[in-house]
This record gives sequence, structure tokens and C-alpha cells, in this order.
Amino acid sequence: VNTHESPGVEARLSGVLPPLVTPFKLDGSLDLAAFEANLDTYAGADLAGYLVLGSNGEASVLEPDEKLELVKAARRRTPSARRLLVGTGLESTRGTIELTRRVADLGAEGVLVLTPHYYRAQMTTEVLQRYFEAVADASPVPVYLYSVPVFTGIPFPLELAVRLAEHPNVRGMKESSGDVALLGRIVASVPPTFQVACGSAPVLYPALCQGAVAAVLAVACCVPALPVAIFRAHAAGDHTRARTLQQVLTPLAVAVTATYGVAGLKAACDAAGLRGGAVRAPLQPISDAGRALVASLVRDAEAALR
Amino acid sequence: VNTHESPGVEARLSGVLPPLVTPFKLDGSLDLAAFEANLDTYAGADLAGYLVLGSNGEASVLEPDEKLELVKAARRRTPSARRLLVGTGLESTRGTIELTRRVADLGAEGVLVLTPHYYRAQMTTEVLQRYFEAVADASPVPVYLYSVPVFTGIPFPLELAVRLAEHPNVRGMKESSGDVALLGRIVASVPPTFQVACGSAPVLYPALCQGAVAAVLAVACCVPALPVAIFRAHAAGDHTRARTLQQVLTPLAVAVTATYGVAGLKAACDAAGLRGGAVRAPLQPISDAGRALVASLVRDAEAALR
Amino acid sequence: VNTHESPGVEARLSGVLPPLVTPFKLDGSLDLAAFEANLDTYAGADLAGYLVLGSNGEASVLEPDEKLELVKAARRRTPSARRLLVGTGLESTRGTIELTRRVADLGAEGVLVLTPHYYRAQMTTEVLQRYFEAVADASPVPVYLYSVPVFTGIPFPLELAVRLAEHPNVRGMKESSGDVALLGRIVASVPPTFQVACGSAPVLYPALCQGAVAAVLAVACCVPALPVAIFRAHAAGDHTRARTLQQVLTPLAVAVTATYGVAGLKAACDAAGLRGGAVRAPLQPISDAGRALVASLVRDAEAALR
Amino acid sequence: VNTHESPGVEARLSGVLPPLVTPFKLDGSLDLAAFEANLDTYAGADLAGYLVLGSNGEASVLEPDEKLELVKAARRRTPSARRLLVGTGLESTRGTIELTRRVADLGAEGVLVLTPHYYRAQMTTEVLQRYFEAVADASPVPVYLYSVPVFTGIPFPLELAVRLAEHPNVRGMKESSGDVALLGRIVASVPPTFQVACGSAPVLYPALCQGAVAAVLAVACCVPALPVAIFRAHAAGDHTRARTLQQVLTPLAVAVTATYGVAGLKAACDAAGLRGGAVRAPLQPISDAGRALVASLVRDAEAALR
Repeated sequence: VNTHESPGVEARLSGVLPPLVTPFKLDGSLDLAAFEANLDTYAGADLAGYLVLGSNGEASVLEPDEKLELVKAARRRTPSARRLLVGTGLESTRGTIELTRRVADLGAEGVLVLTPHYYRAQMTTEVLQRYFEAVADASPVPVYLYSVPVFTGIPFPLELAVRLAEHPNVRGMKESSGDVALLGRIVASVPPTFQVACGSAPVLYPALCQGAVAAVLAVACCVPALPVAIFRAHAAGDHTRARTLQQVLTPLAVAVTATYGVAGLKAACDAAGLRGGAVRAPLQPISDAGRALVASLVRDAEAALR
Repeated sequence: VNTHESPGVEARLSGVLPPLVTPFKLDGSLDLAAFEANLDTYAGADLAGYLVLGSNGEASVLEPDEKLELVKAARRRTPSARRLLVGTGLESTRGTIELTRRVADLGAEGVLVLTPHYYRAQMTTEVLQRYFEAVADASPVPVYLYSVPVFTGIPFPLELAVRLAEHPNVRGMKESSGDVALLGRIVASVPPTFQVACGSAPVLYPALCQGAVAAVLAVACCVPALPVAIFRAHAAGDHTRARTLQQVLTPLAVAVTATYGVAGLKAACDAAGLRGGAVRAPLQPISDAGRALVASLVRDAEAALR
Repeated sequence: VNTHESPGVEARLSGVLPPLVTPFKLDGSLDLAAFEANLDTYAGADLAGYLVLGSNGEASVLEPDEKLELVKAARRRTPSARRLLVGTGLESTRGTIELTRRVADLGAEGVLVLTPHYYRAQMTTEVLQRYFEAVADASPVPVYLYSVPVFTGIPFPLELAVRLAEHPNVRGMKESSGDVALLGRIVASVPPTFQVACGSAPVLYPALCQGAVAAVLAVACCVPALPVAIFRAHAAGDHTRARTLQQVLTPLAVAVTATYGVAGLKAACDAAGLRGGAVRAPLQPISDAGRALVASLVRDAEAALR
Repeated sequence: VNTHESPGVEARLSGVLPPLVTPFKLDGSLDLAAFEANLDTYAGADLAGYLVLGSNGEASVLEPDEKLELVKAARRRTPSARRLLVGTGLESTRGTIELTRRVADLGAEGVLVLTPHYYRAQMTTEVLQRYFEAVADASPVPVYLYSVPVFTGIPFPLELAVRLAEHPNVRGMKESSGDVALLGRIVASVPPTFQVACGSAPVLYPALCQGAVAAVLAVACCVPALPVAIFRAHAAGDHTRARTLQQVLTPLAVAVTATYGVAGLKAACDAAGLRGGAVRAPLQPISDAGRALVASLVRDAEAALR
């Protein structure tokens, strides 16, 4: 399969994908069984696919072999109608390419490539362009850019997206800055084959209004039906419902990202009947009060869908 | 009239208001005739009112007596069906209160109060709450909060908006950060009598989707019909048109704010047949290339409305 | 006197100058008697002069006539052997020039000109260069640049200092960023007639080591003898004493600037037998605990000098 | 050897240590021969030891096995009179501990542990304290904290240094923020057994004045004699020479860090007769003009020492 051709229907990014959490046991080791159990639960939700090894999957604290184990497990549990994306961005071009090739061999259908950021002062638009082009040249599967300044400290210039959208193997972007002006400008500046996913749940509905065609959101791990309902309401032109549900989504989204981080998201998964599991140090477990708050927000979210 | 009562129809903030530019002559002196001529031109646009002495009105470089002259001139040219708001935020509580009283005496129907910011490390939520409450207590007219972190360096915490919304004389807010997640959270957290205006044109349409009920936008000075058309399209449920027009609005809005600042906005006014005039130093005139670009974007905007 | 000539001995910036606090009465009005009483107290300290209308003088919340009153009072109480500097930076070039001329008429021997900052995105090196040059061209007295990014949000580029040092009426700079690398680079890049004052007390001793020749420090208001002792120890080559005293100075300096701001500085003045007075709203009075801490640090500082 | 005891003479951090560059061949592979050749050259310099796997060693783009190869090579070439420190900070506590144990087994005499930073919003003082304590508990060799906000985006609170200084196996810190006020506060707040190294060459001399007892500086890779001369001049009380040499050091230091980054440092090594080699992508080679500038600064530095 020459995946550098124009994307077919199967390659389109659309709908809602959870950036899967990586459950750990209390001793810090990987809990693959919990990971697979979550995938079984997600089978009943209206999800377009999964992202493995994203920021919410604690990719930055996983060992190389753990990453491959997770991809294999996800591949086994991902139905053919759903897309399996994998986060492969590392600090070095060669490292990212090598991991990209490995996960493609294991069945990843696309890779999400984080902006390298350690030497941030050197990460000019030109340097980043070369980086992503090198990865896209070498990747056997479609490449999606991943901008998340809250973690990388690197804003993603409009111009960079515009230039990279010309590469036949760069198919889109996860825009997680929450800047819907930028998101709208990107959508308006790239060909429609470059697809923009919203990566910031508190702006899901406005991002869809600005032209996002997909969403990769932490909250989709714990209450997938809520972002899915917003996505559908928007697609159906039911803006009143979209906005109403957004107001329910936002406090939960803030709690499981900005306020409590991954530990909050895992607590929300636990509260929703999934298996969040422990976080890996240096991240610390959520407090009891935090856990109770998160659980309450999960219940609110579930109630809003009834 | 006891304006501390619940707002009547006439006190509602709704629709589009330009933050009027303050034209200067080439020698740097105030050009009141040009200011009044602009108001005459705006008579034909579907505007809900005007804001005098905003950031785009170069309030920070105006002398006290110039401010009063501008308010008087605006009062003379503001039809009764339109609202006249005036920016009165200074660094001191007493200074803001004094200016607020003076402009109310001159006919201002509401004041927009900027976050004080020089001693920013001391501007905690509690300190800002006291400041705005003191101003609201003393103001004979409704008070609107004005958050514009790009100028002040001070983010506006959700909690502050929530607390201030309880004050009977605080009636709303101009939210100019471009953070539509925050805007949505504010709207969802305050009573409907607290009205939120979008102050960032690149997110006008998504801000309306999040619940903004008005817009105070630099671009409304040069091509008022464009934000008005977006406002109306959204109100009518024509999201396709709103989004299409937003994509035309955004490049112009970026040019007359982030890229070229007030000099760009004034050049856009000139290009649109209004009288922008010179900026006051230290701001510098726009380059010829910038002027040409801005004029081209104005023509694009006007063409999109035909 | 043609002050645009090369500076004579009398025009050299050297030694320690307090940026005088502006005492207010409890009702918020100016307490000129307290201001003058402080100047009487300072007569006994080994100070090189005074700065009126600086950031610690709450210049941003003073009315124009209050500013002139303070300059007049300072002029009356400043011995001829001490230099009287006045902060005159406003947001507009014309406003700064007008105030500069007025205070020069009242006897100011130099002006300290703050970076304009409201339209910060437009404040490029070129724009700032033009601003300072216009002020220096018009000023009848020597001009000193004033960089204080903690308040303005504007870093002061090395290149800007280098360019402005060529102007015959720009005689130096108050560098308050705390960045002693920048301070050292400026000193190494300008002619010796451009004199750099340290404006950040926690780096007084290292700034002197990097070539600062003067110091304008909040702590010089409350315990002037301490920075003076550090200045003298450095000048005498007694680095051990300089460093030891710096370790006493730093906690007090942090308390009266970063931690408690002007309210802390005024409390420290009160504790030291001076008259700090109230701050002007929106600044709030220091807490009792803060006041006790500040007083304790003042006592430590005084004890270290015995 | 129980390294958790109080440090003996041999464990003191003192003097100048270069954070060794990692030369790559043009194909991006590790050039161990060049790395070893550099160590042979350094044998003639008055260095206190070496740091392997620091930021300037491009640790973030090295594979795990490459890291171990470098440590082994450094161990072979490090004389017993010099200390061999190794950077081992990764994003996960367990990963950092594992690497720390491995390099200790290979002969590292201390480890430099970077602040984890990917989930920066969660990296509170408490979380960071637990992280460093866990690493220090597990490490068979002394632990040095490594704060470099320009790369991590995480400031290092004074309080964190104070708390960690109580741990018997935390022996000091590399402070690379350039904030000599903070450095001075840390020195004044910890026991003398906690040793602070300056990690920012433009403030080497003022940092020594504030109490730094060692220096780990990029410029020590290309012109080690220059920081060594400053260190000695300061130790000998020759402040005039220290300051004069600092003014030579600073432009070179800025070029090989802030301006050109690691590519600049490697070009400076080439210019000085060492073997810098290529950088690893996404970092890009320095331009010809940059290379010429860096070479010129190296020559200036060498000339100043004659």
C-alpha cells in the first residue's frame, strides 16, 4: 500500500478518538490487562479510533519496550472500522523515525508527532519544518502533527502548518493549544485533505464551528459519549444541544487536564467504571478530595446524556 | 434613573460596537472633526453603540481634557437608540472613579473598566475584586469589566468574574483574551444579566457559539458590516455563513490588531473611506507595504459582503 | 548650562539613591509633610541623591499636580551635594516630554524615563529608540533609561542601550531586571560616560562587580545605610564584607518588592522610624503578619550594620 | 563505600567542569573517537572533572546504549584526580533511578539530575521534592540537582533547594538560570556541604561573588582556560582580572548557548582545535557566518589569556 497517495475514505480523520490512558499497577509496572479491558469497554462507544502513546498515555515516562507492548495490545483490540493512531514524537529525528517505523510494522495506521522541544530556542519554524518533513518522508503511514504548548512550551506557527500541509504524507494535526483563532486560521489556510483535530475539550464545540473535523480529547477516555454527543449535535446542526453539552463537558475536561492532570483523568476513568490505575512517578496520586470532585463531575456528565 | 436596578431592555449589551479610533493630526494633536465625521459615517451601519476611550482609541496616550472632549463629541453624535460606553480604567481606584463620574455626567451610559496592571504581582483576585467593587459602588452608570491580557499582562480569573457578577452594578465584561474556553466558562457561571462581549475578532463566531451576546471589536471601526453580518448570521442560525464570513474577518482582524496595531486599524479606516488619521508617538505610522496589505484586506472584506 | 555637553563631575551618577516612597494619608490623599519628614531623616544618611516619582513612589497612581507638588517638596529638601532625579516616563512621547520639561523647571537634575509599555507588541527596538531619542532631544536635563520588566513586561534589549548610549543627553540607565548578565553586557558595550545603576537590590553586590556605578533601590528608602555599606565595601575592595551584607540585604529586599510590594516597603519605612504611610488603592495595606515580618527584617538589617 | 556519609575532600564540587559535547559523524552516528580525543586534549587543562550527558552533550537525543558507551569512554579517560559526573535525569523517577545505578556501576562519581518537566503544571515543589528524594535515596553516588529553566520551563524554587539540601545524598546543584539573586539566596540558605555550581557563563564572576564554588559551563568545552582563569582570579581576590576576563567570556558564552546553541558550541570546539563534530537532527548545523563569528570569539578568548 502506498500511503503517500491522497487519503482514501479509510484514512480520513473524523469523529472522536480517546488518547488512551496507560494503567499502571501500584508498583509502577505496566498493567496491560487493565489497558485491554478499557479497550473492550470502548467497543460499545461510538468512537472513530484510538490514540496510543499520547500525552495522556504518559508516553514520556514509558520505556521503549512498554510502548511496543501497548501498541500490540491496542492493535489486537482495535476493530477494523476504527483507526489506530500512535504517538511517536521523540526529541531526535532519528528516534522518531525509528519508533514510527516500528509501530507501523505493528499495525499503527497513522502517527501523531509531537513538536520536539528540549532545545526550544533553536526550534525555529525552519528547523521544525525539516523535522516533520524528515519524519513524513520516512513514515510508512500518514503523519499528524501534534501541537501542545502546555507541555512543550512551543507555539505552533500558522506558517508551519501551511508549509507542512503541502507534504503528501502530512495529513493533519492535533491542535491542543485551545487557541481556536489559530485553529480557524489553519483550517482556512490548508487544503481540505489536511485535517485538523481539536485537542482541547473546553473548546470542542467552538473548534468544530471553526472547522475541526475530529477530536482527540482526554475526556473521551472517561466519558466518551459526551464528546461524541457534541460532535454529533454539531454535525446535525443542533447548536443548542452542542452548546449545552459543552457546558457540561468543560468542568470535567478542566479537572482531568489543567487541574489534576493525568491522575485526575485516571480517577475519572475509575469513576466511570473503566480502569484508570495508578500514575507513574514523579506524577502523584490524586487527593481524596480531588477524586471525589472528579467522580462527581463524571456523574454530572453521564446524567446530562440521559 | 437608578441604574443599580436590574437592567432594562435599554441597558442590555447586545450587537456590535466599535471601539472608536481617535484620529490625530500629523502634529499629534486631536482631530475632533475627523472623529465626528466617522460617527456620521457609522450612522448608516447597524451598530448597537460605541465605545470611546478604549485601547484602540489610544486612551493610554490621551490627556484628561482630550478624553472629555471626545466623550462630549461622541455624546452629540450618538443616536438615542445606540449605547455610548466609555473606557475609564486608570491605575488608581480614585482616578478611575473620578473619570467614571465625569463621563457619566457627560452622558456615558456605561463604563468599561480596564484591569489595573502596573503593579501586576500585587493584582491578586482579591485586590482586583476590591478595585472593581469600589468602582461599581461609586459609578452612576453600569460597569463592564475589561480584560485584555495582551496589553495588561494580567489574566482574568474565572473566579473574579463570578464574584463580580454578583454586584448589581457590574453588568458584564469585554473578554479580549481570545480564550473562548474561558469565555464559555464565564457565561456558564454567571447569571444571564451579566453579559459577555467578545473583544477578539478572530474568535467572534466561536465566541458567539459559546454565549457571547455582543462584540466590541477593532474591525468594527473599519468594516462594521462584516462583524455585524456574522452576528446576524449566528443569531439567525446560519452557521455556514457565519463561519464563511469569519474566515474573511480573521486576516483583517489580525492585521489591524496583532500585526500592525492601532496604526494598522487607522490605515484600514482610511482605506474604507473613514478617517483614521495619524497615531500618537511612540506608536509609529504603518509602512507603505503594511498600508497596502491592510487596504487589500479591507477590499476583500467589503467584497465578501456584496 | 548646556546639559547636552559631556557630563561634568557633578552630573555623574554614583552611589546610592532611594526611590522615595510617596506617603498617603488614610483617606488616600497625599501626605506631603510625611514626605518631607523622610527627606529630613535621609539628610543623615550617606546618599548620593533621590529619585522622586519612581515605581516605588507610586507614580502610576499620582495625579499630575501631585507629581509637581512632590518634586517641589523634594527640591526644597535636597542639598546641593545630592542629585535630584525624577521619573517622568508616561505612555506618550509628548506627555513624557511635557512632564520632563516641567520637572526640569522645578529643579530636577535628571529624569528617569520608563519604557512605554501599554502597546507592548508594537514596542520594538526601533520604536523604543525613537521614543527615548525624542525625549532626550527635548529634555533640558540628562536622561536616564529605566528598564523594569517586572512592571512593564518589556525586556530591554542590549542593542537598544548601545544605540541610545550614543545620544549626548542619554547618560545612563537604571537596570531593574535583576539580569546581571545583561547589565554586564551593557557596561561592556557602552562608553564609560553612560552610567549603569543597579535597580534590583538582591543583585546589588554582583551588579557592582559587573560594573554598575550606582544603585537606585527600594531598600534604600527604609535602611539606606545597608546598601551604602555594600557600595562602600565593594569600592574599598572588601568583597567579604560586601557579600556578607548582601546576604542580609536580600531577604529584606525581596520582602519590600517581590513579596509585599510598595505596601511592604512602606511598612519597612514605618519600622525604621520613617513615615511610610498608606498605599493608594487598588494596592492594599500589608497584613499584620507581613508587617511583623518586614519589621523583623529591618531589625536584622540594622543589627548587621552595628 | 558508603557515599551517604558527609562528603570527603574527594567528593567536593569545586573548580570548572566542562559539560562534554557529544560529537556525531555526518551520518548522525556517535563519534566516540572524537569524544575520546577531546578528553585527551582536556588532560592539559586545569579542569576539576567532567560532566557527561548534560544538555550540551545532547543527552535528550541519545539512545540508552549510546549513553552507556559515552560514560564508559569518559571513565577510561578521566584521571583519578578529576571527578566524573553524569547527567541522568529522565522524565520518570524509575527511569532516572535505573540510569543512575547503571552509570554508578560504570564509575560515575556523582549524578546531575534534571528537573522532570513534561507535565510541568503538575511539577509542584512537593512533587519535585519527592522525585529528587526518591532518586537520592536510590543513588549509590552523590546527587546534584540540575535547574535549567531555559530548557525545562520550570523555575527552581528556593524552598525546594532548601528542603533537598537536608538529604544526606543531595550534595549540591547546578544553577543554570542565570538568576544570581536566586543563587545567592540558595547559598545563604543551605549548609555549606550543599555546593552550588554556576551553570551560566555570562554570570560566572558574579555567581562566584555570590558564593558559587564550582562552574559547569558550555564554554569550558571550547576554551577551558578562560573560565578557569576567572575562577582562579576570583579565588585569589583579583577582582579586576576576573571582571575583565568575564567581559571576554560573555560574548563567546552567549554565542555558544543562547544564540547558536549546541551547534555553536561544537563550532567553537572545532575552532579551538577540539573535535565538535555534527549535531543530531532536529538541531541543524550552524551557518557559515555563525561559524566564522564563533571562531572569531574563540580567538578573542584565547588572545585574552596570553
